[in-house]
Amino acid sequence: MNSNTPTTLAEVQRIFNPGSIAVVGASRQPGTIGRDMLKKILDFGFNGIVYAVNPSAKFINSMRSYRSVLEIPDPVDLAVICVAKKLVPQAVDDCARKGITSLIMITAGFAETGEDGAALERQLFDRIRSYGMRMIGPNCMGIINTDPAVRMDATFAGPMPVPGSIGFLSQSGALGVAILERAASMQLGLSSFVSLGNRTDVSVDDILAYWNSDERTKLALLYIESFGNAARFIQVAREMTRTKPIIAVKSGRTRAGARAASSHTASLAQSDVAVNAIFESAGVLRVDTVEKLFDYAQAFAAQPLPKGSRVAIMSNGGGPAILATDAVEGEGLTMAEYTPETTARLKAVLADLASARNPVDMVASAGATHFEAVGDILLNDVNTDAMIVIFVLPITSDSRDVANAIVRAYERNKHLEKPVLVCFMTRDGDNSGTPILRNAGLPVYVFPESAVQSLAALVKFRGIQQHKQGAARSFSDVDKDLVRKTLDGAKAAERKQLLPNEVNDILRAYQFPVLNIQHVAKRTELAKAAAKAGFPLVMKISAEGIVHKSDVRGVKLNLRSADEAEAAWDDIANAVSSLPHPPAKWGVTLEPMISGGKEIVLGIHADPNFGPLIMFGMGGIYVEVLKDVAFRLAPLNESDIEAMFKSLRGYPILAGVRGEASIDFDRMRELLFRLSQLAMDFPEISELDVNPLLAFPAGKASIVVDARMTIEL
Amino acid sequence: MNSNTPTTLAEVQRIFNPGSIAVVGASRQPGTIGRDMLKKILDFGFNGIVYAVNPSAKFINSMRSYRSVLEIPDPVDLAVICVAKKLVPQAVDDCARKGITSLIMITAGFAETGEDGAALERQLFDRIRSYGMRMIGPNCMGIINTDPAVRMDATFAGPMPVPGSIGFLSQSGALGVAILERAASMQLGLSSFVSLGNRTDVSVDDILAYWNSDERTKLALLYIESFGNAARFIQVAREMTRTKPIIAVKSGRTRAGARAASSHTASLAQSDVAVNAIFESAGVLRVDTVEKLFDYAQAFAAQPLPKGSRVAIMSNGGGPAILATDAVEGEGLTMAEYTPETTARLKAVLADLASARNPVDMVASAGATHFEAVGDILLNDVNTDAMIVIFVLPITSDSRDVANAIVRAYERNKHLEKPVLVCFMTRDGDNSGTPILRNAGLPVYVFPESAVQSLAALVKFRGIQQHKQGAARSFSDVDKDLVRKTLDGAKAAERKQLLPNEVNDILRAYQFPVLNIQHVAKRTELAKAAAKAGFPLVMKISAEGIVHKSDVRGVKLNLRSADEAEAAWDDIANAVSSLPHPPAKWGVTLEPMISGGKEIVLGIHADPNFGPLIMFGMGGIYVEVLKDVAFRLAPLNESDIEAMFKSLRGYPILAGVRGEASIDFDRMRELLFRLSQLAMDFPEISELDVNPLLAFPAGKASIVVDARMTIEL
Repeated sequence: MNSNTPTTLAEVQRIFNPGSIAVVGASRQPGTIGRDMLKKILDFGFNGIVYAVNPSAKFINSMRSYRSVLEIPDPVDLAVICVAKKLVPQAVDDCARKGITSLIMITAGFAETGEDGAALERQLFDRIRSYGMRMIGPNCMGIINTDPAVRMDATFAGPMPVPGSIGFLSQSGALGVAILERAASMQLGLSSFVSLGNRTDVSVDDILAYWNSDERTKLALLYIESFGNAARFIQVAREMTRTKPIIAVKSGRTRAGARAASSHTASLAQSDVAVNAIFESAGVLRVDTVEKLFDYAQAFAAQPLPKGSRVAIMSNGGGPAILATDAVEGEGLTMAEYTPETTARLKAVLADLASARNPVDMVASAGATHFEAVGDILLNDVNTDAMIVIFVLPITSDSRDVANAIVRAYERNKHLEKPVLVCFMTRDGDNSGTPILRNAGLPVYVFPESAVQSLAALVKFRGIQQHKQGAARSFSDVDKDLVRKTLDGAKAAERKQLLPNEVNDILRAYQFPVLNIQHVAKRTELAKAAAKAGFPLVMKISAEGIVHKSDVRGVKLNLRSADEAEAAWDDIANAVSSLPHPPAKWGVTLEPMISGGKEIVLGIHADPNFGPLIMFGMGGIYVEVLKDVAFRLAPLNESDIEAMFKSLRGYPILAGVRGEASIDFDRMRELLFRLSQLAMDFPEISELDVNPLLAFPAGKASIVVDARMTIEL
Repeated sequence: MNSNTPTTLAEVQRIFNPGSIAVVGASRQPGTIGRDMLKKILDFGFNGIVYAVNPSAKFINSMRSYRSVLEIPDPVDLAVICVAKKLVPQAVDDCARKGITSLIMITAGFAETGEDGAALERQLFDRIRSYGMRMIGPNCMGIINTDPAVRMDATFAGPMPVPGSIGFLSQSGALGVAILERAASMQLGLSSFVSLGNRTDVSVDDILAYWNSDERTKLALLYIESFGNAARFIQVAREMTRTKPIIAVKSGRTRAGARAASSHTASLAQSDVAVNAIFESAGVLRVDTVEKLFDYAQAFAAQPLPKGSRVAIMSNGGGPAILATDAVEGEGLTMAEYTPETTARLKAVLADLASARNPVDMVASAGATHFEAVGDILLNDVNTDAMIVIFVLPITSDSRDVANAIVRAYERNKHLEKPVLVCFMTRDGDNSGTPILRNAGLPVYVFPESAVQSLAALVKFRGIQQHKQGAARSFSDVDKDLVRKTLDGAKAAERKQLLPNEVNDILRAYQFPVLNIQHVAKRTELAKAAAKAGFPLVMKISAEGIVHKSDVRGVKLNLRSADEAEAAWDDIANAVSSLPHPPAKWGVTLEPMISGGKEIVLGIHADPNFGPLIMFGMGGIYVEVLKDVAFRLAPLNESDIEAMFKSLRGYPILAGVRGEASIDFDRMRELLFRLSQLAMDFPEISELDVNPLLAFPAGKASIVVDARMTIEL
């Protein structure tokens, strides 16, 4: 809903850094949110003043209580509102009169409950905006800021937060608590946490902008069900991911999921193609499951990004080492090839039966000293960029000894900036090694595959960071007026589906190479028209009643000169005259003879939530079956286009296999920028399919063979 | 290596059901395998007699010790050998003289260590086979049989096994122990466990055959690195999966992984395509990670297979419910649509803010009574086949109360045979509900996605069970002699790559429709040859020095009669005579005019380990880029072929989209059976590519346009 003035960074910073908080709806009754909220703020040791507001209580938790915020003698920076729904308007009015500009609205019962609730929520939004307030929620579980200068845990559930470098955003309250629990049990420290609820005012992008400015936040984790303003999300996330990774679970992915999301946080259904396009454009790492969110978070929270993708694996068991090796190749990483020096050093420390190749299998007899020595050797090999350490159940070793040995090897070589990830396959009853590793900042996984996938995410993010976004291009040689006139004409005639010549006019106005078809009625006009169409050309009879043109020998291919064209005309004239019922009137069409070329599809799809999506892919009549296409949100930039090209399964075909030349990708880039410009200039274009565009190598012109367009009336 | 007489079922049963065991290499020294092995057999309470064999000790564990098995006064059924490698031959000889026919060879240092070890292993195999013995190992960690009549834990590491219905096989010892640990901590009961090590004699298929015969085993879990005899694996697994599911992690998947597997268990590298083909043919569920193995095992161990794929979801938190809903659609399951009665009943028990649609969101205020009532209602809806229950951290409820409530709803409705899977997102410190659920046979997951994926595996296995394997077909109208003669001719000439006409001869001999090209030198022969080629046809000039046939107007398309063919000949004659340098001699070729059709690729690839693989897929020049192909091991059966068709991304294209007719799949089936027959008849065919085969709808003949074949010399 945040369609009015955008939230400023300073406003969000104020919400997270209050000097005083009023808990409106504070309570002394166990089991109520108002009681738990107050208690948690106090328990975490808020570095400021808390005021309890309750219409009847005199004191709560031995603190003086106020009947209204208006009674509070001092200024209040933030109000956390947990009153019953019907009391919300009064509470907001009171806060406004008190001069409070930041609200956290815990109270539920708004858009998530249906139409009536949605109307209430709109009223609430108008009210807070009319007062110039900013609000998190409603229907949320609050926020946390672990900054020692603030120490605010204004959530009504979950464990005591562990301070750290992760910013965590959850749209869902229930999942938010589960997430806080898990983060705490995994020793993952948070810089801040926010449950956005219905995100009526402050939205995902506002929080990202805040984290980008926040020195304590090194990494953002998102559980989101909707984006809010997608364009701003992309802009803010792009900026942030230059230095800080963002990892996201976006639910409501499938149709049924979207339905559930709709009933849950009153978000509109969003197609997954658009969502992926947004994440890709923004440089956000999308994961499928909350479990992977934590797997990745462990790796990103304390490990450096690897400088390359060459992985060293060491293990005291062969089976897990093979699983890890499989995963390395499956994730597109490479197994490091050790230098001869490394191999010699390994052989010197390893047992007879051990393997000194990658993966290093130290066999079951390996003890803590082996883990330390081998870890040292592998990290110091110039051919390694990262290391996976696998420890399988100790028969003779103490898992704490092994953990300490791994930590020593890791810390001694920290200056090399090679990430180390550990797979600790110990008995469930013996988790004593894990905290030692985690305290040292080493991520710990139960299975080798998770460790490798998380390492692959580090490598991928390094690629995202190094990626130059590249500029967008726009063209001044386009004829906007012609397009406007053509669209207006169609609208006046109430035609959603444009006529073929209208589509061609629009494409030509944006300098698309549209197939040029000449109509010729007389032999005397032939030479001139043929020259205009260009040789070689195809001549087809055009006469009422003649459908199967080949059957009457009315199609002539590969005409290479005016002479050949005239000879062909005469052939057709002969053929026509020998028909049992010759047509009264006939002529021919001339079109360039096009053979070969790769079929490309280009398109615009106006997403109801996010605006125009641009499509590029392998074209032809089976485009919908093979679905080898890529989407990005308009306006495109260079890196969007590059990524679209490379993401196609058929990319090698376009780039040239079996000795073929590559298609003219520069020309494709230009056409995509033109398409993006068209889509941005005319948002009423709801669908455009250019299919096929025949693409050729540089030097030969690509050409639009067919196109369709629909518009919003 | 088990290439001699196959192991019989009775022989494997004897290994798992001994009345007496000799531990050869038993020891009293802590930290030795010989000591741990003896101790574990005794600790688990072996239901028979154990003899300790040690060359020097008088007694071990207060038991009399024997210097050799030959000193033991009574018969011995099984010898577990843990002596040093150099003592193995003597130990085996002694066992043979004692009349022991079953060995478990714990001792390592064989093929897994390199060439010398491999030679030793071959000697060991020859030795035990010459004595008619059967052996598990070497380089293994032993076996377990939890049958109360046996109670044998002959493994030297891992926790006390929990009796149950799962058969677990691990090729890797290290992973085997980790697996046993995890199974015990998850309360997953085992019927038996076997670590195969180098599987020199007894192999994976032998164990599967044993489990198929074993009433206590309901489910098989495999961690394997190689198959042994793939054909027998398929045969045994197919038989077993009619009633009992098999879930497998096969490692050594990728190239690097295969290299590691090779150094680890001396298995040959195996391409993953072949491995997938084998699992698919065998009805085995393949999982990527050990974690999923356990996820699935939980579900299969105690839950019934659902009768359909309609899932009911209930949750006390919206976010996790959306994640589960996403996963349901992502896994190809469907969200159940509740009956009006169900909706009414739900509304009666749910809180105001709760959602009675699927997923049922009971909101955070839900307590144990809600879980029980809603579970009851959903299981009794005729539109549901399975239920996922999600419980997110308790604010007010005790997780044991909720667990007990879920168990009550589950047990009351067990007769409905609808599987119930639980996602328990509690705080890590509070796992008190989980054992209650697991004791009742309910699988418990931490994240909703794992629960849904496991349910999807149940649904998939139901599909596998219901699948009729269908017969293989073979044809008597093939000309084996001609193929033999052709292949022998190529071999005699030392040509690996067959000539085009040889390939065509071979394909024709197996009744493949090969493009028929007629050569015509004289106009007088034209009519006859044209009739033979069939109309409509294409005529092309054939003359030395003329390469670009179209350029000299030497190509005539779509000739529909002898008259048209003769007119075309005359046209070409005219064109030839008007050339500046007419050829001295010319003629024409005639071939059927083929337009349209779908490009198919058929192929044979002789896998060095598994024999011929048959390929079917979308053909054309980009087959290697688009890789839309399916493989199955020959010989094919009906269900193999059906699955190959359906697995293609391009299947809808073949089946007909946009109003097109389906290709003639019956004809494709026949051709695939013929290909399979050819591959089985002539194993020296190392590669055959038929690309493209043009496929048409029924009534129009499909045709092989091009084919290549290479053979082993």
